[in-house]
Amino acid sequence: MQSHIQIILVGITHPGNIGAAARAMKTMGLSQLRLVQPKYFPSAEATARASGADDLLINAQVFDNFEDSLQDCHLILGVSARQRTIAWPVLTPRAAAEKALALPGKVAVVFGREQSGLTNQELDHCHYLVQIPTHPTFRSLNVASAVQILAYELHSQSEALKATDDEHYLIKNNPSLPQPASALAMAQFYEHLEQTLIDIAFLDPQNPRQLMRHLHRLFNRVQLTDSEINILRGILTAAQRLTDN
Amino acid sequence: MQSHIQIILVGITHPGNIGAAARAMKTMGLSQLRLVQPKYFPSAEATARASGADDLLINAQVFDNFEDSLQDCHLILGVSARQRTIAWPVLTPRAAAEKALALPGKVAVVFGREQSGLTNQELDHCHYLVQIPTHPTFRSLNVASAVQILAYELHSQSEALKATDDEHYLIKNNPSLPQPASALAMAQFYEHLEQTLIDIAFLDPQNPRQLMRHLHRLFNRVQLTDSEINILRGILTAAQRLTDN
Repeated sequence: MQSHIQIILVGITHPGNIGAAARAMKTMGLSQLRLVQPKYFPSAEATARASGADDLLINAQVFDNFEDSLQDCHLILGVSARQRTIAWPVLTPRAAAEKALALPGKVAVVFGREQSGLTNQELDHCHYLVQIPTHPTFRSLNVASAVQILAYELHSQSEALKATDDEHYLIKNNPSLPQPASALAMAQFYEHLEQTLIDIAFLDPQNPRQLMRHLHRLFNRVQLTDSEINILRGILTAAQRLTDN
Repeated sequence: MQSHIQIILVGITHPGNIGAAARAMKTMGLSQLRLVQPKYFPSAEATARASGADDLLINAQVFDNFEDSLQDCHLILGVSARQRTIAWPVLTPRAAAEKALALPGKVAVVFGREQSGLTNQELDHCHYLVQIPTHPTFRSLNVASAVQILAYELHSQSEALKATDDEHYLIKNNPSLPQPASALAMAQFYEHLEQTLIDIAFLDPQNPRQLMRHLHRLFNRVQLTDSEINILRGILTAAQRLTDN
């Protein structure tokens, strides 16, 4: 749990978005929700959309005033999908997550109104503007979706911080994935395969062409397990048996 | 616009989630939505939640059958927040986005039902399982939020690709790298394989056990090319010919 991260929602008018934001937070291990001037709260619709994250709603702090909601925070990040014309230090969600996690003190990640986002006065309180990259023709990101993206980056970056080098591999090593067969088992499989292809008259040993090379490439790529080799060699044996007739 | 990326939603019961998914897609430049057995569609609630992304709903393709929705796709990624006990190659959302963007052909990113996700039978069609990292005590990610995270990673990675130097870009989109066969070609291969295994008396259709599932996993993992399918089907035909004697 990243209990030093405060998610602050400012001026939300649709209570469903508050519930959806709470659910988005909880899936990513965030628990601290602050609401500034929510139009309706508490609300049955928020609770319904929270779908099991209603503990975050029960514990949410409600403020009349944006400044009050920030007082104990040491880093304030204002999230916006809009392009701002004003000069502002802008972070990607990933860079923002890195900054937030590096800080021992409380961090506020602030999201604005459904229609209009954060005002320039509110942004004046922020150390950075966080811009979620969107397609230029349709920037209308739902506020709970924006919370989901930031929460996802915070969770991913905190996992990455914990991780060893292994986790940076593209394909994560699923611990339940059995290890590939030994080179010896593979060599025996290829020998069995080649002999069977000769037996069923698919491979002409006088004119082998590139067939076995293609099959090597194919089966090396898949990194067969021992049990898969057993299945494939079972099939080969069944085919060879036919040639004895 | 990443028009080669197909977002496939399977068995969605709440139409609001379909609308929210469409909005999530459009903010990130995705446009191609496919729906398999939606409980209610079209629906006013979906249109309301799409909030300006209703063009994606109008153009959405609806299928009765999961397999039909995949036929023109060359890479199939199944998204799940659940921990699976079965062995499966697992990608992070970011790694999945990289793989999807590197492929010239159509790519399916598949999301399952609100309560139960994708079935194991549906996962059998997938080359990779994409696991969105969540907090271990609360994995209940909303399906439209999951779409938002994948769409965000696809958009972010495609922006990152544009930003890298030309040489890197060329390597990523190497046209001489053969693309994996279509789902239709794979389905025909599996059908031929299964019939051959019956013909050579290796597979008992009265008692098939898990054999075809194991073979699906094996050959989906390898991402067969069309020419490799030709070789393998040539071998199958040679084996079948023996049974005619």
